[in-house]
Amino acid sequence: MDIAALQTRNSAHWKKATAIRALTLDAVAAAKSGHSGMPMGMADVATVLFEKHLKFDASTPKWPDRDRFILSAGHGSMLIYSLLHLLGDAQVTLDEIRNFRQLGAKTAGHPENFLLDAVETTTGPLGQGISNAVGFAMAEEIQRAHYGRKVVDHHTYVIAGDGCLMEGISQEAIGLAGRHQLGKLIAFWDNNNITIDGEVGLSDRTDQVKRFKASGWHVQEIDGHDPDAIDAAINAAKKSKKPSMIACKTHIALGHAAQDTAKGHGALTDMDQLAAAKKAYGWPHGPFEIPADIKAEWEEIGRKGAAQRQAWQARFDTLSAQRQAQFNRAYACEVPKKLASVVRALKRQVSESKPKIATRKSSEMTLEVINPIMPETVGGSADLTGSNNTLTGDMGVFDVDNRKGRYIYWGIREHGMAAAMNGMGLHGGIRPYGGTFMCFTDYARPAMRLAALSKVPTVFVMTHDSIGLGEDGPTHQPVEHLAISRATPNTLVFRPADTVETAESWEIALNQKATPSVLSLTRQSLPTVRVEHKMKNLTAQGAYVLAEAEGKRQAILIATGSEVSVAMAARDMLQAEGIGTRVVSMPCMELFAQQEEGYRRRILPAGPVRVGVEAGVQMGWDRWLLGERGREAKAGFIGMNSFGASAPAEALFEHFGITADAVVAKVNDLL
Amino acid sequence: MDIAALQTRNSAHWKKATAIRALTLDAVAAAKSGHSGMPMGMADVATVLFEKHLKFDASTPKWPDRDRFILSAGHGSMLIYSLLHLLGDAQVTLDEIRNFRQLGAKTAGHPENFLLDAVETTTGPLGQGISNAVGFAMAEEIQRAHYGRKVVDHHTYVIAGDGCLMEGISQEAIGLAGRHQLGKLIAFWDNNNITIDGEVGLSDRTDQVKRFKASGWHVQEIDGHDPDAIDAAINAAKKSKKPSMIACKTHIALGHAAQDTAKGHGALTDMDQLAAAKKAYGWPHGPFEIPADIKAEWEEIGRKGAAQRQAWQARFDTLSAQRQAQFNRAYACEVPKKLASVVRALKRQVSESKPKIATRKSSEMTLEVINPIMPETVGGSADLTGSNNTLTGDMGVFDVDNRKGRYIYWGIREHGMAAAMNGMGLHGGIRPYGGTFMCFTDYARPAMRLAALSKVPTVFVMTHDSIGLGEDGPTHQPVEHLAISRATPNTLVFRPADTVETAESWEIALNQKATPSVLSLTRQSLPTVRVEHKMKNLTAQGAYVLAEAEGKRQAILIATGSEVSVAMAARDMLQAEGIGTRVVSMPCMELFAQQEEGYRRRILPAGPVRVGVEAGVQMGWDRWLLGERGREAKAGFIGMNSFGASAPAEALFEHFGITADAVVAKVNDLL
Repeated sequence: MDIAALQTRNSAHWKKATAIRALTLDAVAAAKSGHSGMPMGMADVATVLFEKHLKFDASTPKWPDRDRFILSAGHGSMLIYSLLHLLGDAQVTLDEIRNFRQLGAKTAGHPENFLLDAVETTTGPLGQGISNAVGFAMAEEIQRAHYGRKVVDHHTYVIAGDGCLMEGISQEAIGLAGRHQLGKLIAFWDNNNITIDGEVGLSDRTDQVKRFKASGWHVQEIDGHDPDAIDAAINAAKKSKKPSMIACKTHIALGHAAQDTAKGHGALTDMDQLAAAKKAYGWPHGPFEIPADIKAEWEEIGRKGAAQRQAWQARFDTLSAQRQAQFNRAYACEVPKKLASVVRALKRQVSESKPKIATRKSSEMTLEVINPIMPETVGGSADLTGSNNTLTGDMGVFDVDNRKGRYIYWGIREHGMAAAMNGMGLHGGIRPYGGTFMCFTDYARPAMRLAALSKVPTVFVMTHDSIGLGEDGPTHQPVEHLAISRATPNTLVFRPADTVETAESWEIALNQKATPSVLSLTRQSLPTVRVEHKMKNLTAQGAYVLAEAEGKRQAILIATGSEVSVAMAARDMLQAEGIGTRVVSMPCMELFAQQEEGYRRRILPAGPVRVGVEAGVQMGWDRWLLGERGREAKAGFIGMNSFGASAPAEALFEHFGITADAVVAKVNDLL
Repeated sequence: MDIAALQTRNSAHWKKATAIRALTLDAVAAAKSGHSGMPMGMADVATVLFEKHLKFDASTPKWPDRDRFILSAGHGSMLIYSLLHLLGDAQVTLDEIRNFRQLGAKTAGHPENFLLDAVETTTGPLGQGISNAVGFAMAEEIQRAHYGRKVVDHHTYVIAGDGCLMEGISQEAIGLAGRHQLGKLIAFWDNNNITIDGEVGLSDRTDQVKRFKASGWHVQEIDGHDPDAIDAAINAAKKSKKPSMIACKTHIALGHAAQDTAKGHGALTDMDQLAAAKKAYGWPHGPFEIPADIKAEWEEIGRKGAAQRQAWQARFDTLSAQRQAQFNRAYACEVPKKLASVVRALKRQVSESKPKIATRKSSEMTLEVINPIMPETVGGSADLTGSNNTLTGDMGVFDVDNRKGRYIYWGIREHGMAAAMNGMGLHGGIRPYGGTFMCFTDYARPAMRLAALSKVPTVFVMTHDSIGLGEDGPTHQPVEHLAISRATPNTLVFRPADTVETAESWEIALNQKATPSVLSLTRQSLPTVRVEHKMKNLTAQGAYVLAEAEGKRQAILIATGSEVSVAMAARDMLQAEGIGTRVVSMPCMELFAQQEEGYRRRILPAGPVRVGVEAGVQMGWDRWLLGERGREAKAGFIGMNSFGASAPAEALFEHFGITADAVVAKVNDLL
């Protein structure tokens, strides 16, 4: 690489880009950890993008109509931190740069949206950012259709590396973007030919240009160090009606001794080599030192969007008060006041009509009353619409010629769906939910974790939540998946017993601003157990007494979802034997754990034997059975301790011993 | 579709294919559940494949040199059951066909390798089969290189649907197969343009032909109902040195009223429509009735490989006794006798030298003694070779020009790696292991579950297993992943404390024939805690007393992995305070749970306070703390209850309170 030529050919550009490279080298060296090569390789692309194209105002990083910039190759976090510092972002001070990757710093190892306002999404696990970006771009299309171009009109830019493109999820994202002609999505591929293990060719020889074209993308190939070529490519990409991929041939760790090597991918901490690289750059400044003129130029770039933002504000102010309020409410992730009343009305109705239906159908009934009053919901399913019951009458289908459609046919892409939903939620203004079979939590899992970590209130509608799925067999029957989601921090897992609890669960899920929810719903029909209408959302306490013991309280049955009615049947039999039995419905363990001890003690007092009933593994139950005043000698569990089997549901519940008879026998054993 | 023309043009073929369609219609109708359309659409392809190409002997489904046939579109399970019944497979009787999807039947909803010998792999979760197939094909290449073409020379055929190709994992598989020029892998794409939600175009418009070509595949497009075209395409595919994809344009539910519709994808149970379809086929026979002549023709196909198998056996018998024994041992998944002695020697050496190293390095040391004596091991990493420490000196790298290489650079493809490893294990003769960061259990998760369900002893080498990962931050720090793997049935999760336990864990993992193992290994260095050499594999009991209390036993500290040395340090402090403290190392909860109660009671007696220490979530620990004679008032846990953070490891352990001081404080609180 002829660094000298780069320096002289576009010296103003070079200096700005070099500021990114120098800060990256210094921060990684100080931290003795991090990834130097990627920011050094992509500094030119980022500089041109931010200087000439990206619509943003560094003073107001959350301006709703900003262009979104997503660093899918999140390990190159110093790229974004350098940019934000140079641009004058108030949160990214020089001290933050110096503290890169240290405890308490906002400049974490990978970019985290909950630490920095200007970071759109938490990246690092590869392929997530580019898939989030699909959701960002869809959210923009939907909102633009709804509010008009004068209020919503921005691009989504994403930088992806070879790792992002090798992860399977990228294919799901590429396919979705191509199918929906997301023309305002522009992806830069950092084509540096290097991964951690060596040259890309060690593990992949895919022609990425052909691959993207096969899915309907506009593709360009450029020298990623040529600012004019970068600028021209972005201009061409903006003009295309297809999503654009710009393959940027770059040199990882440009100008460093480790350039173009796997070593260059990691932390470059050799101080002599660092000095040599800076010398090659023509950068005589000390560590963390940015000359005032270069900083000023960057800060000017950081300010250039202020006028656009003010003009946007003026346009926004012309919207009707109602539309402004709706826009602002959705961006604030607040529910409409009417939500509580429509949920209450539904609860009252079903407490009276007592339908015997599957909770996936209960969920649909709930959505039928929610979707009309929350225009910000966007639903979908990973090719199981009829099974997940996620489509309601009023939504319309999102498509190239119907951007107002609020339902998305995600295809057989649970992972891409989950990541794109996270992107929609992070974009703002949209409340995404999407369905699949609960067993395929496995496929969506990396994005479900990121929803929790990055504090997006995505709702995962997981139907067919046990062996009750029946004949499809063990590949499709979740047994460990409730435990998996419950083990995940900042995740609410709801397993409602009937339509009332399902409606309550939806109400809570939509009231979350920073926590995803998992709804665990049945395939099979369940009786209504909440036959007495209560205004109060009982699910909000996580667990409550559904049926009190008659006579002396000798047993407490704790159950969730489809097993609540099993517990109720067992209670009838136990009461008939003269054994006073309380049934506790526990639709959300996380919310119950948050209640104060007095409440928990009232629900789960010491003394009676306890039996937990759930068609899943025991993991996660011991706290409620052995702890919380429980005792090993007086506690039992009726559930699964193996994978399921293929048979009609009733036969399976019998076969695996999840029946009222088994509960009664367990109680009698323990008494 | 002109069914009449199909009937007359190739009537002998048509009758055989129609037998598949008729059995499918009858079995699904009897079960009132299942997927009729796929077998009906792909019956012609399957008939030509089995009649003219597939090398197999229905009497001996486990013949090692058979061609492998994988139904990636596993919902079409009646295709494989029909074929096996028609061919005369002894396990698939007509009663089994009649019992499709019923409790106890071998004809489960989706094909399960543990129920039927002729089913190569359990499919249903889409995209897994085609990714398993990559592993099957790699295993064949490696073994062919090792034993020669006269003993190993077979193809891997796979049928994939639109769902398989939309799942991201398929891109990982396609990329791997193309990169490694797996010329003996031949995939049929059931190009029927239908998914559950409707036409494929609802969610995808990818040009699959271009997509496969972009990754270096040989691609053909044919009419999937034309037997001559099918035959010619398979012949051409066999000649290509590239992996082959044959795009078969088919009609889902061919000949039925639901042909070419989403309804046709599911269970076709309308008896009038069923009768009409059979009439259109020219199939006047009753339910489950196969005319003797057609059955005889199919059985002849089932027998045609017998001579090939006998010839193969004769060639195999010419191998040296040693090579025969090695071949048979590896296929039986048995370890060499020397394994125990090399592990013991390593244990003795490290008990004496007491290295302070990361357990990922301990794992490498163990592999350095195992790989030379187990030529059937095949290692790899998802682009983290230097971090996972999975490559040992003697392995060689698998490549187009080095098929003997036993190390695979999987690229950034955790999911594809895991599924391909399962495929290798299922192929037989190979013991696969592969590494990634433990946090990326999430990406590999669907295939890890299938390893457990389908009883493949794959070894997942999961390094950087806690906040000890340090600066990369919470996106890369597992906190719930031990719980996730422990919640999964038929999975052994090992979290060794030092090199001795790591070696013991590997020994146990390799002795499994039907259970996958997860090795949870540290990034950071740990002291040797097993400083007294024991011949016995103590890890095999799951937990054991590492250090006994001196004086009156007041506390038991239970710890795993990197926290065992924390517990040991806490014990020193507690003993100094006069508090007799036992330390129990618990490297494998599943194995401890399998011990008889007497042993468990000796390790965890009633009485002392108990504190669990593990840098993960508490889920899964309550059994050992509150149960097994424990009591809530006397039990505590030191671990994580949130996501981690970005900082050096030492700072994080301090920040999250996972320290000897915290353990001591907890014990004092409880006493």
